Amino acid sequence: MTVPKSQRLHIALFGRRNAGKSSLINALTGQDLAIVSDVPGTTTDPVFKAMEILPLGPVVLIDTAGIDDVGELGQLRKKKSYEVFEKTDLVLLVIDPQAGYGEFEKEVVQKAQKTQTPVIYVINKVDLYQPSELLEQFKPLNLQPVVFVSALTRKGIDELKQAIINHAPKEWILPTVVGDLINPGDVVICVIPVDKAAPKGRLILPQQIVIRDIIDSEAMAMVVKERELIHAFNYLNKKPSLVVTDASVYNKAAADTPSDIRLTSFSILFARYKGDLQTLVEGVKAVKNLKPGDKVLISEACTHHPVEDDIGRVKIPRWLRAQVGGDLDIDVKAGGGPLPEPLNQYKLIVHCGACMLNRKEMLSRIMQAKVAGVPIVNYGVIMAHIHGVLHRALSPFPHLQSIISETMDDMKEEIESLKKIRGRR
Amino acid sequence: MTVPKSQRLHIALFGRRNAGKSSLINALTGQDLAIVSDVPGTTTDPVFKAMEILPLGPVVLIDTAGIDDVGELGQLRKKKSYEVFEKTDLVLLVIDPQAGYGEFEKEVVQKAQKTQTPVIYVINKVDLYQPSELLEQFKPLNLQPVVFVSALTRKGIDELKQAIINHAPKEWILPTVVGDLINPGDVVICVIPVDKAAPKGRLILPQQIVIRDIIDSEAMAMVVKERELIHAFNYLNKKPSLVVTDASVYNKAAADTPSDIRLTSFSILFARYKGDLQTLVEGVKAVKNLKPGDKVLISEACTHHPVEDDIGRVKIPRWLRAQVGGDLDIDVKAGGGPLPEPLNQYKLIVHCGACMLNRKEMLSRIMQAKVAGVPIVNYGVIMAHIHGVLHRALSPFPHLQSIISETMDDMKEEIESLKKIRGRR
Repeated sequence: MTVPKSQRLHIALFGRRNAGKSSLINALTGQDLAIVSDVPGTTTDPVFKAMEILPLGPVVLIDTAGIDDVGELGQLRKKKSYEVFEKTDLVLLVIDPQAGYGEFEKEVVQKAQKTQTPVIYVINKVDLYQPSELLEQFKPLNLQPVVFVSALTRKGIDELKQAIINHAPKEWILPTVVGDLINPGDVVICVIPVDKAAPKGRLILPQQIVIRDIIDSEAMAMVVKERELIHAFNYLNKKPSLVVTDASVYNKAAADTPSDIRLTSFSILFARYKGDLQTLVEGVKAVKNLKPGDKVLISEACTHHPVEDDIGRVKIPRWLRAQVGGDLDIDVKAGGGPLPEPLNQYKLIVHCGACMLNRKEMLSRIMQAKVAGVPIVNYGVIMAHIHGVLHRALSPFPHLQSIISETMDDMKEEIESLKKIRGRR
Repeated sequence: MTVPKSQRLHIALFGRRNAGKSSLINALTGQDLAIVSDVPGTTTDPVFKAMEILPLGPVVLIDTAGIDDVGELGQLRKKKSYEVFEKTDLVLLVIDPQAGYGEFEKEVVQKAQKTQTPVIYVINKVDLYQPSELLEQFKPLNLQPVVFVSALTRKGIDELKQAIINHAPKEWILPTVVGDLINPGDVVICVIPVDKAAPKGRLILPQQIVIRDIIDSEAMAMVVKERELIHAFNYLNKKPSLVVTDASVYNKAAADTPSDIRLTSFSILFARYKGDLQTLVEGVKAVKNLKPGDKVLISEACTHHPVEDDIGRVKIPRWLRAQVGGDLDIDVKAGGGPLPEPLNQYKLIVHCGACMLNRKEMLSRIMQAKVAGVPIVNYGVIMAHIHGVLHRALSPFPHLQSIISETMDDMKEEIESLKKIRGRR
């Protein structure tokens, strides 16, 4: 079992001088952080850059010195570059088609194999070549896995992100599920209903993970059933910094939580922890674009026996049909592996909470949807939206609340314009 | 998998009129609750009696009408007796050697087999017969499992308790681990250290079980690391009714918990939940009777790789030797199944926390020790004693504190008398 060498995924970029490592970093992050220059060897030392790549989350990109440098300085850089392998989860070997695949590339691959670090072959600058030229040059080499990109035009960048996810360590997790939202000494209330769905005499894993992350963060977790929530506020003489509730009792929790206290749900926290909350929240916006007859994919990670009023097979389809005011062509697919292709036949993907998937598997599906250009949302996010509580459930994430606000503004505008049309008749 | 039909173990006693069912109940409970009479058929209806049997804990004993009653009333009673099977985990079929094993006994066994309820054959009144007579009468019948008892002289009662434990459902648990110690609306603080021993990112099962039981009891669980405990008291404007700490930080927790608040540990709660706290606390008293050269059994349920300063192999033996002021003959046995025989070669048994045993397996070992007349204590209780915190860790159980107080008084007396002897010299 491969375990990440650190809690943040460490991705090292190797490549000859001027292969385009720094501009590739910019393309991955969408930021202009690295020094981009056409003077060979601008990057002189391995640089560790903690950054956010959507939808991967926090990563460390390791920008290495050009490994084909000659002379004494070059040897030194080379040595340092190889030390990097010890800290690396994944290697991106950036290849300039003009320079091709030569001795230094082979050397990097050998070193990576010795440390059992996966390598992704990234053929850069493809905008400068005909596809047939590239095929002719690289097909005989049988490099696996290979991604053709242009850091300049961003072509292939989403496919590269998908490859990164696919080759990340299986145990890749985020450093924290809730810890980054709270401060030491904070009190966080966790609302855990005890209903038929609760396992006998214990806590389910998401609840354990959240409580443990709270105490790991030197904060305190006040654990209550929904009925006792109101008493918890009375018994505390310090304002809780956050309330995390089970989604099934969201309305009760929202009613009892003062409006100046941030409130979210275990499902929202796990949508972020297991996948990418921003993409899933953006997916909600696609609901209003659905038209009668559109195809929608309900995707479940496990094959469970559907229960009466099943969330994926009954509740969400019923609500979606009511929204579009007509029928929808809804496919339900359950199981592991990639989503069914061609994926772009669907106008929306509604995914389960992914309790049976790890972060890597869920992110892989999110990227598959992104590459196909299909909006994706999950049960937790869409159910919060259906119950009219998504905006408040995103209160710990103000930058995501604005996505929803835009949707709400759009809808208000639409309502106004429809009213005007009706008024003219 | 057999699951108890209720949270309390339901034990039904069947037997002919005057087989001695009611006096057997008295012998099991040590109380004079049932009507004991030599007039056949005194007990007229199945009676459900919730009671405590040491070390089994809370059970329901079902005293049935004599099933060999004749006439209309007898038939009615018989029908009611059979309805009882639906609610029964275990049947004690009480047999009077004078009446012997006949049609009604066979009928009970058939009914029990239909509902897959285990039957223990209890040959009562053995004080009235020669062992050879009983053997001659019952050996050819090959009744399994069989226990020979005398409700009158209490002979065989411990063996019967052992048989009850052995044939109880595998999943037999106590109704509550902490719920009976608290009231709805209470705040309970749980102190959970995050050290190397803690699993990554989650809570261990005993912690989950305690938190869940607190919220199931309509109380609130404030979960903190030991460093934050002092803040928890400051942030609460209601006095917590109980603090439950991990034993590894007991001294820190005791220092920070006001003396008027009850304090115990997860290990003490689980010594009670998984076994019988009273027997284990009584076991502590045996330490002072140990003499150099005595044999002590360290019993561990699982075969783990002993760590440096291992609690069972190093810490406890070191402390015991220091207590007796000489060497001890210490056996360490690890694994499942019964304790090694002959068990009475040992003067003390020190058992592990039994995290890998269920209640039934741990109780079975406790009964084995009781039958052999060997004191038994577990790691949690003896470590609390070693650290001088057992008395306070028993604060939720005042009737057990008095057992320790006696020991302390005994020790004080001994110290005084030794001082006097020294003074005379």
